[in-house]
Amino acid sequence: MDNEKKFEKLEPIRVKELDDILGVPFKVLDDGFVRVVDYLGSDQSIVQAARVSYGKGTKQVSQDRGLIRYLLRHHHTTPFEMCEIKLHIRIPMDAWRQWIRHRTANVNEYSTRYSLAIDSAQTTSPDRWRMQSSDNKQGSSGFFDIETGKQMSEDEKFLHDKAREIYNKRVEQGVAREQARKDLPLSTYTEAYWKIDLHNLLHFLKLRMEKNAQLEIREYANKIGYEIVKKWVPIAWEAFEEYVLTSKEFSGFELQLISLLANGKKEEAKQQALDYGWIKYKENGELKFNMERWEFENKLNELQIEIPW
Amino acid sequence: MDNEKKFEKLEPIRVKELDDILGVPFKVLDDGFVRVVDYLGSDQSIVQAARVSYGKGTKQVSQDRGLIRYLLRHHHTTPFEMCEIKLHIRIPMDAWRQWIRHRTANVNEYSTRYSLAIDSAQTTSPDRWRMQSSDNKQGSSGFFDIETGKQMSEDEKFLHDKAREIYNKRVEQGVAREQARKDLPLSTYTEAYWKIDLHNLLHFLKLRMEKNAQLEIREYANKIGYEIVKKWVPIAWEAFEEYVLTSKEFSGFELQLISLLANGKKEEAKQQALDYGWIKYKENGELKFNMERWEFENKLNELQIEIPW
Amino acid sequence: MDNEKKFEKLEPIRVKELDDILGVPFKVLDDGFVRVVDYLGSDQSIVQAARVSYGKGTKQVSQDRGLIRYLLRHHHTTPFEMCEIKLHIRIPMDAWRQWIRHRTANVNEYSTRYSLAIDSAQTTSPDRWRMQSSDNKQGSSGFFDIETGKQMSEDEKFLHDKAREIYNKRVEQGVAREQARKDLPLSTYTEAYWKIDLHNLLHFLKLRMEKNAQLEIREYANKIGYEIVKKWVPIAWEAFEEYVLTSKEFSGFELQLISLLANGKKEEAKQQALDYGWIKYKENGELKFNMERWEFENKLNELQIEIPW
Amino acid sequence: MDNEKKFEKLEPIRVKELDDILGVPFKVLDDGFVRVVDYLGSDQSIVQAARVSYGKGTKQVSQDRGLIRYLLRHHHTTPFEMCEIKLHIRIPMDAWRQWIRHRTANVNEYSTRYSLAIDSAQTTSPDRWRMQSSDNKQGSSGFFDIETGKQMSEDEKFLHDKAREIYNKRVEQGVAREQARKDLPLSTYTEAYWKIDLHNLLHFLKLRMEKNAQLEIREYANKIGYEIVKKWVPIAWEAFEEYVLTSKEFSGFELQLISLLANGKKEEAKQQALDYGWIKYKENGELKFNMERWEFENKLNELQIEIPW
Repeated sequence: MDNEKKFEKLEPIRVKELDDILGVPFKVLDDGFVRVVDYLGSDQSIVQAARVSYGKGTKQVSQDRGLIRYLLRHHHTTPFEMCEIKLHIRIPMDAWRQWIRHRTANVNEYSTRYSLAIDSAQTTSPDRWRMQSSDNKQGSSGFFDIETGKQMSEDEKFLHDKAREIYNKRVEQGVAREQARKDLPLSTYTEAYWKIDLHNLLHFLKLRMEKNAQLEIREYANKIGYEIVKKWVPIAWEAFEEYVLTSKEFSGFELQLISLLANGKKEEAKQQALDYGWIKYKENGELKFNMERWEFENKLNELQIEIPW
Repeated sequence: MDNEKKFEKLEPIRVKELDDILGVPFKVLDDGFVRVVDYLGSDQSIVQAARVSYGKGTKQVSQDRGLIRYLLRHHHTTPFEMCEIKLHIRIPMDAWRQWIRHRTANVNEYSTRYSLAIDSAQTTSPDRWRMQSSDNKQGSSGFFDIETGKQMSEDEKFLHDKAREIYNKRVEQGVAREQARKDLPLSTYTEAYWKIDLHNLLHFLKLRMEKNAQLEIREYANKIGYEIVKKWVPIAWEAFEEYVLTSKEFSGFELQLISLLANGKKEEAKQQALDYGWIKYKENGELKFNMERWEFENKLNELQIEIPW
Repeated sequence: MDNEKKFEKLEPIRVKELDDILGVPFKVLDDGFVRVVDYLGSDQSIVQAARVSYGKGTKQVSQDRGLIRYLLRHHHTTPFEMCEIKLHIRIPMDAWRQWIRHRTANVNEYSTRYSLAIDSAQTTSPDRWRMQSSDNKQGSSGFFDIETGKQMSEDEKFLHDKAREIYNKRVEQGVAREQARKDLPLSTYTEAYWKIDLHNLLHFLKLRMEKNAQLEIREYANKIGYEIVKKWVPIAWEAFEEYVLTSKEFSGFELQLISLLANGKKEEAKQQALDYGWIKYKENGELKFNMERWEFENKLNELQIEIPW
Repeated sequence: MDNEKKFEKLEPIRVKELDDILGVPFKVLDDGFVRVVDYLGSDQSIVQAARVSYGKGTKQVSQDRGLIRYLLRHHHTTPFEMCEIKLHIRIPMDAWRQWIRHRTANVNEYSTRYSLAIDSAQTTSPDRWRMQSSDNKQGSSGFFDIETGKQMSEDEKFLHDKAREIYNKRVEQGVAREQARKDLPLSTYTEAYWKIDLHNLLHFLKLRMEKNAQLEIREYANKIGYEIVKKWVPIAWEAFEEYVLTSKEFSGFELQLISLLANGKKEEAKQQALDYGWIKYKENGELKFNMERWEFENKLNELQIEIPW
């Protein structure tokens, strides 16, 4: 930050890979899409902003890739806020209800007060009806057989048709659009412009690409991640995969156990789990369920480390 | 702000009128409500915060009422942010979709991924079906006759019953709740805890008590305003009525016209409107519609000032 | 919003007038500047976003200029959030302390923990020392004579030199930069990247171009407004001047008085002011000061309407 | 969420341990403090909000402590936003400059435009002058000897006295306060009311209790954490210590290495690090510095796991 330096005229920062797909819709679900309307910044802008902050201090991690990875790894989030993207989204209202909970974004949604509701609702093909997960209160697991699915899809179609018929009838009779829409199904498509900075977009993707996120919104998140962000800021995206998507956190206590296990001290680890209250037995000698322990066991399984109890 | 002063132990600031209704639901629509769960601060807290900011400077407007009115009138918003309220709301999803667009609030909404959807949808009695407004694209004006309304209410009931029947069937068959809910009508009730500071609440009320706001959300806003905020911070509320609810803005050009009109110079005012482009005639001599002029005429009408053209 | 329509590939929206000055610093104060680093959107983007929201409803106000003016006049703020700008600012820390209070922006500030403090502090020329305003607790009015000013500027220089000397000495002796900086004067320059959407930028400008804003920050705001925003979004800027910069608000009670005055009813207006508590007399017959009445009188003066009491 | 249930009147939620210290200042630095002005909510409110969200789904983790720990561990942040606290802080402007960068809070700061600047600046005792860290660009490590410190403290006192003398002189001569303050040292104390929800407060504490945070702000953060938050929401605090303060993250690649090391496969781990580019040698055979590898080595050291290369 040399106050003697002369500033040169700048050119806007453009990313060819993203310019190539500007405006092109990526299909999601049966009738949804996401498309990039415009954007500001690139990997280079992250670096540029960081160098403003750290001044000469950034010489230490002087390569751009190293710097971006460092920033992301250490949660230095503000340089990522210096990139911004504007998307046009077509999405069922049900998924949009979740989406809109992310507050740090700018939104212009299609208004069904001003205009007629979009004449499209998300439909489910017979092989896509999902069963309630038994071990995850909010999830689903597996699909119904086609026969059952067919009947479900027929019911769905009946309901969509009826709802639209009644909506159209109301509008024709002159009911105010703001009231006519009141019984449209949540599956009705809506559209919106959605503008967000890269830091908050990555946070959105972290939550919505996660395996516990609802399938519908996850499909949007994956499309945005792999088709858009990856092209836009390839270095930041690579860091995001490494430090967020595939990373894991361990609590203070879990770290103690990892330390013991990596040093071959299984018995000590078990004893600590016992002292900590993780290991309790039923009268019949079975291990009682403990959620914190169970989550740790899952992590050990993924790391292929033997569970010590 | 005397750095020598000794701080005394504080008591929490409580407002008796609000404590008296803590937890009590105020009914809205056919099956909705708002109730206060908890709050922080009072009129006194606004004053307290302003005095931190302005220090001895606040002696000038030393009375609390005068100070609060001054702050609100001059958009000194931060002292109003020092009060916070937490509401429990039951509301149709359709109205909630609008509500949630106000981003500066904390929200915990009832999840239909985890739990069964609330078994209630907003119903419309035969005399409450509204006609599309002709001069306001997003509004409604007047009600349908009872006979027409009866048929509409029957269609509504049919649709609610069918949608619920299919929802229940899906759940019974084991469809994941997150998917089963996809065709619930927008009129289905949801519940939420909603926490917001007083400044942002007043902004919400300004927009949602306005006559162009949709009737359903306006009923919630009015209940919150007159039953809750008025009890909680009576001085701020009085100022809000004076400086926001009943106030008007005039543009630079409108002010020029007002100045002329108040000085009896109607012809000059007309000439200025002509020069400004507000007054144009059709071939048949009729005045062309001009929205900016029309809005100004409406203001003049409300002020009972004669339109000079 | 036609779900049949084919989307065409988009080109990024660029504004030639702004591209022409990209990166060029506009000087502010003795050693500060603002320069545009990059931006997203234009007047056209505001219209584009509004048309997503209102769909066919926007045909009514179909011309772009009319639509933008309508949106701004009616506080439909979200389409303005669809434009974003990134500035590079060099500013004394004292003014930056005020600036940073605007929370809805992204910031990367030069860090004096990582790097040496910028070797420049804002200096005051002998003719720019301002006198404390007597009727405005936070303002200034008029300048000191040159002789007094000279002495003040000498004291200023002495202090700057001493502070820098001690800072340099600490750094040379190896004091941590984060501690060495602790006694730098508030006038020391800092730099930052500051990114904000157009709606929030206009709000910032409204507050900081106002005559009560501190002179130093006002100079930045004016430069941003007239040199940058006016080039970037000329239609929105024109509307902002008309509906914000030159507009006035009148409270419910003030409107009653305006109505009476415009109809020649001065006595009634005076009587209402009396009943409202605005008019009270001291024992000696003089009118007591009342701030609300005084502010209204100021507005009447600006409108060249005679004060009726 | 039973729509048949009757709501009972509520009592405000109070926490005795926090009520006991309401208004009591905790001293920080030589002349600073933090004190609780008021608050809203408790551990119980977190649970209450979560139960609104998850409805009957929360029976699974039915105990309050288990639920709060679950929420914090899984970054379900919204229930923590349902608690709010208002603090009164006295702090040097230099530390406040960092503090205020946390945007999700409400602030009323003492204004030196309206009032005279607080007559106190943070002083450093001779044994508290810190040396610049050599391996951390932004940190400090170790203290200067007393003799050197004495001279530094004398310079500091000289500068404080001069700055205050000139400030006072300006004020006496009638310089506007907004201008007179321009050369006050950054160490000058300011005061503010600061209101924030528990989620954002914990995020603030995470960043500012961290060992790389500047010592001055860290002392405030520690005081807030251990003296205030711990009393206010003891269960959430315990979870915060376990899942945030003492936790660690491992990237996807680091997890691969941990997995190998815990299974005794040191050679394979080394080979992977080689393939990944972490291990490179200088011409003289020495291992080249690699920041990512170095950070991982630090984690292994803390876990007492042997470094495999």
